[in-house]
Amino acid sequence: MLVLMRADATPDDIEKVSERIRELGFASHPIPGSGRTAIGITGNQGAIDPSNFDMLPGVAQAIAVSQPFKLVSREVKGERTIVDVDGVAVGGKSVVVMGGPCSVESEEQILTCADAVANAGGTFLRGGAFKPRTSPYAFRGLMEEGLQLMAKAREKTGLKVVTEVLTVDTVQLVSDYADVLQIGARNMQNFALLEAAGEQPKPVLLKRGMSATIKELLMAAEYIAAKGNYNILLCERGIRTFEPMTRNTLDLGAVAMLKELSHLPVIVDPSHGIGVRSGVIPLARAGIAAGADGLIVEMHPEPSRAWSDGMQSLTIPMFESMMGQVKRISSAVDREL
Amino acid sequence: MLVLMRADATPDDIEKVSERIRELGFASHPIPGSGRTAIGITGNQGAIDPSNFDMLPGVAQAIAVSQPFKLVSREVKGERTIVDVDGVAVGGKSVVVMGGPCSVESEEQILTCADAVANAGGTFLRGGAFKPRTSPYAFRGLMEEGLQLMAKAREKTGLKVVTEVLTVDTVQLVSDYADVLQIGARNMQNFALLEAAGEQPKPVLLKRGMSATIKELLMAAEYIAAKGNYNILLCERGIRTFEPMTRNTLDLGAVAMLKELSHLPVIVDPSHGIGVRSGVIPLARAGIAAGADGLIVEMHPEPSRAWSDGMQSLTIPMFESMMGQVKRISSAVDREL
Amino acid sequence: MLVLMRADATPDDIEKVSERIRELGFASHPIPGSGRTAIGITGNQGAIDPSNFDMLPGVAQAIAVSQPFKLVSREVKGERTIVDVDGVAVGGKSVVVMGGPCSVESEEQILTCADAVANAGGTFLRGGAFKPRTSPYAFRGLMEEGLQLMAKAREKTGLKVVTEVLTVDTVQLVSDYADVLQIGARNMQNFALLEAAGEQPKPVLLKRGMSATIKELLMAAEYIAAKGNYNILLCERGIRTFEPMTRNTLDLGAVAMLKELSHLPVIVDPSHGIGVRSGVIPLARAGIAAGADGLIVEMHPEPSRAWSDGMQSLTIPMFESMMGQVKRISSAVDREL
Amino acid sequence: MLVLMRADATPDDIEKVSERIRELGFASHPIPGSGRTAIGITGNQGAIDPSNFDMLPGVAQAIAVSQPFKLVSREVKGERTIVDVDGVAVGGKSVVVMGGPCSVESEEQILTCADAVANAGGTFLRGGAFKPRTSPYAFRGLMEEGLQLMAKAREKTGLKVVTEVLTVDTVQLVSDYADVLQIGARNMQNFALLEAAGEQPKPVLLKRGMSATIKELLMAAEYIAAKGNYNILLCERGIRTFEPMTRNTLDLGAVAMLKELSHLPVIVDPSHGIGVRSGVIPLARAGIAAGADGLIVEMHPEPSRAWSDGMQSLTIPMFESMMGQVKRISSAVDREL
Repeated sequence: MLVLMRADATPDDIEKVSERIRELGFASHPIPGSGRTAIGITGNQGAIDPSNFDMLPGVAQAIAVSQPFKLVSREVKGERTIVDVDGVAVGGKSVVVMGGPCSVESEEQILTCADAVANAGGTFLRGGAFKPRTSPYAFRGLMEEGLQLMAKAREKTGLKVVTEVLTVDTVQLVSDYADVLQIGARNMQNFALLEAAGEQPKPVLLKRGMSATIKELLMAAEYIAAKGNYNILLCERGIRTFEPMTRNTLDLGAVAMLKELSHLPVIVDPSHGIGVRSGVIPLARAGIAAGADGLIVEMHPEPSRAWSDGMQSLTIPMFESMMGQVKRISSAVDREL
Repeated sequence: MLVLMRADATPDDIEKVSERIRELGFASHPIPGSGRTAIGITGNQGAIDPSNFDMLPGVAQAIAVSQPFKLVSREVKGERTIVDVDGVAVGGKSVVVMGGPCSVESEEQILTCADAVANAGGTFLRGGAFKPRTSPYAFRGLMEEGLQLMAKAREKTGLKVVTEVLTVDTVQLVSDYADVLQIGARNMQNFALLEAAGEQPKPVLLKRGMSATIKELLMAAEYIAAKGNYNILLCERGIRTFEPMTRNTLDLGAVAMLKELSHLPVIVDPSHGIGVRSGVIPLARAGIAAGADGLIVEMHPEPSRAWSDGMQSLTIPMFESMMGQVKRISSAVDREL
Repeated sequence: MLVLMRADATPDDIEKVSERIRELGFASHPIPGSGRTAIGITGNQGAIDPSNFDMLPGVAQAIAVSQPFKLVSREVKGERTIVDVDGVAVGGKSVVVMGGPCSVESEEQILTCADAVANAGGTFLRGGAFKPRTSPYAFRGLMEEGLQLMAKAREKTGLKVVTEVLTVDTVQLVSDYADVLQIGARNMQNFALLEAAGEQPKPVLLKRGMSATIKELLMAAEYIAAKGNYNILLCERGIRTFEPMTRNTLDLGAVAMLKELSHLPVIVDPSHGIGVRSGVIPLARAGIAAGADGLIVEMHPEPSRAWSDGMQSLTIPMFESMMGQVKRISSAVDREL
Repeated sequence: MLVLMRADATPDDIEKVSERIRELGFASHPIPGSGRTAIGITGNQGAIDPSNFDMLPGVAQAIAVSQPFKLVSREVKGERTIVDVDGVAVGGKSVVVMGGPCSVESEEQILTCADAVANAGGTFLRGGAFKPRTSPYAFRGLMEEGLQLMAKAREKTGLKVVTEVLTVDTVQLVSDYADVLQIGARNMQNFALLEAAGEQPKPVLLKRGMSATIKELLMAAEYIAAKGNYNILLCERGIRTFEPMTRNTLDLGAVAMLKELSHLPVIVDPSHGIGVRSGVIPLARAGIAAGADGLIVEMHPEPSRAWSDGMQSLTIPMFESMMGQVKRISSAVDREL
């Protein structure tokens, strides 16, 4: 259920609707829009009688929401969300590029990457300080030291920092250092982590699980939004299919569907999306052409020496070339880079 | 095994190498290039001793081919193939757009479509005269009458005609009417049909099977090439995955890999690739951005009345809008439309 | 639409219903049952008014069929079909085992296999004379010579022969030699081949395509049945998934669903279903436990020297061991071997 | 690297090897076997020189381990592991059946289920107290109250209790009540949770992720084992494929491969494996026939009123029927129930 307020509704009107929602035992989620406010209702199992709200002052209409995801749906919020990451807008006219290594390895490595990303026109530095690894015996990241190195790179370059959080008990720590918290594919349905991310103030980049449906990705985002954090970036990063030549199959049809079903910005990860260096730039171009609001791309000063994901990391010259190509595609879809 | 001839090799030198290949019990496939000729050898089970050829006049080098596909590989032919479809080049600087209905339904319908495609700048008319149908009780196309109507549309508009051939015994008939023979996803490993298509003179558009790997697609193309028809257009049309919201998952990573592994042009089918009308244009843009040489797109004057695939058919105004958008993307990747 | 006749309906009554069906422009398919006859109607696009039949003599009821597959559905024929293969019943109380090599390689090889299968209690000899191969340069089978060798093995052992037919123009030839025609996974939607198999008299073993849904398999069987051949054995042989350790993923849930939706016998192919020798026997046991009516299993006197599929072929002692194990499972599900 | 001790090696010999391992900077995992002890080494990135151990007293052989999973592999421990769940052996001659509802709903419901399971010969009660839900607005289980109700059912029936743990911070709580901790498919790569489960004393039932490979499942088990808990039950519960008719595709080939690669017991979940009630019993039979050591099956007194997973829950009479059928299959594979 969604209660659309009239353009002339007062804060008091809105509060009265919220009170009524709470009286019914549900939760109220006022969502300010450019012209008027909508109030999402969650917590109900079945339909709610619209007459509970129709007669209240300031109410334009009470409408049923047909999708299981609500707060993240375009039914509830028709306008696109622009997420403000400490001054950088994601989801607006400008396309954003997040570049950096798979893992933070050393100060020299991360500063070299950050300089390269900033010089090429990127706006975010990506890098893993806490790494999810298939093997318990593999390198798991520099942890807090990695976060500190990324913060240093931010100071030097002005880039925003996006980095993965793996566990509920490190959400606070990562939130202290990062500008955007990344929740990885393996954790897309780690519901406790989603809720913890929903309770801290930083925006969240939520990656689609390896075999998650589009609807499940939106439901995972709904977990975050239901805790009050609406600053969510959805990320398509390839799904698992039968094809053995590429690491994953990037699903750009999902980008089109996500933009249609949700008001949230969509980021494409061409690096994990194909897992083969030579294919990253074509998919970066394709991602923006499909309508994505940004890219997250792995690069490394020396990919052959990377501690992880070297096969899919761009070299610095390739990253620069990609930026030029993506800039041209951005213009061709009336965006900027 | 591939025998590279020197730039100054004579026709007689080339014939001598072919003779030696035949003496060894194998087949010879001379492949002229801009500078020099390469001769592919097929029919061998294991490695061939290069010294069989090294000393023959005009031979530059005899090299082993590491991929199971040979004639269609870039190892054998480094330059890109440009397929000449009765005067229209596919695989060159210009991107081609093939538009039309799923099925040819009537003269009025196909002429309306053809006019719309031609006016919007398309170069090929697509349309099914023989339809593969999951149900034996469904409409199977107008058959020869459908081919005749497409030929009439070609006369009127100058568009080239691409249409599917389903069976070995209709290859001749379809070849008489069509400019390009389409082999559909269900028939990608119908080896008798591939060979029949390889023995007739018209170019072939070969669609990737629903769960065919990239390598299997190239091996299917190899079947056609091994019969002497090198004019093959590879077509990515979406693969089958677990995602229920879209009909298929368009694999644009495959486009990047195909362009890297093969010299053949690659066409993208965004209509089957997503199966949802609203997603076709974003994927058409993405396909060209990923490096495809053309698009094949379903459109219909009244999609809601289409006899098949109406859900994914563009209206005429949508098709026109797509052409404008794809033109801009083409420029952004140094192509033309 | 299905017209159920009364138990006391006469042949004349049945013919009158068929006449009425033909008058309406549709096709009539009388399906005799143990107690009474049902008449399937195909060729209609939409619903048919039951009052066309309700008043005719001998008619019990005219009922709509809700599934797109009709003749192969249990709605149309509630009793299980038992296919009579020249005296061997498939689909009855006895489980059948079809054993033999991937390819017929020589007289000695096929006779050795046939002896081993017969001695171990198998009832069918499998073996490929016409082989579908991913590569155009690979061995394609001994062709007619292979059929002759299998016929010789049948004479010697009394085993029935099941072998694959690849093309429409060899249906007659294969039908002349084989007791059961196999249509392989790659050809499951080669509709011309399905229809040709429906027009010849021998039973057909229809393999599920690599990424065919259960419904599509039933629709493919419907193609055969619609041409008048109801002697169809459905075969689950593994589907293509993301798992790289096994060649395919055997879908025994499909066996349960097929037995529920269709009256046709179901055969399981554990060899292609896993593609790893050590896993074949466990899956053979599981297939019968799941309710399959038989198995088709690859075996070879010397798997390491097999011309194809050696990795998944059982040795003769393994085949014998499998037979003992499957016999015990058969008893545990009230079947015999 | 694995150090195999001689049968006559003393505890002191074993400790000396462990000391040497620690000196090298690695971790030592002594694994007692029936005849002799093996010591797994983890924490190394590359190969270790076997001469570090060959000359130490009591050492039979130092051997390299070729698989990325070590402690859970049969290379490291050839004998099968029998997990002792408070007196009930899992992985021995007896097959175990775990039955119960998807969610614990009330005292009456769980006691009814427990009585039915116990009477039918089951040994474990399953039931969700903490439920992972796709939607943040769905019922998430009775939580601690649910655990208390299961404990009460255990007192009454003597059944062992298996229940899911969702978060690191509830591991202690669940471990206090349960006999076996279940880690669900969505959490198979929640590495913090795996490690927490590895640090508590109760056995762990680890479900395969929806699109996890067999190798990834074993690596997830390795996370638990690396923390010292070797009492792990691997659970195949179906993988995500393109097939829409069933909820998942049960991969019994994985059961065969897991039994070959690992010494750990394997449990099959036919309920999630197909998601359709009528298919559960056939797959339960097939699972045991394939070699599984047990089953985990959803049942409910009134499936149509179940709060979750009603579609795949057996009724009590169906559960009883299943037990009889599985008992016969168990005998046919030389097991007991």
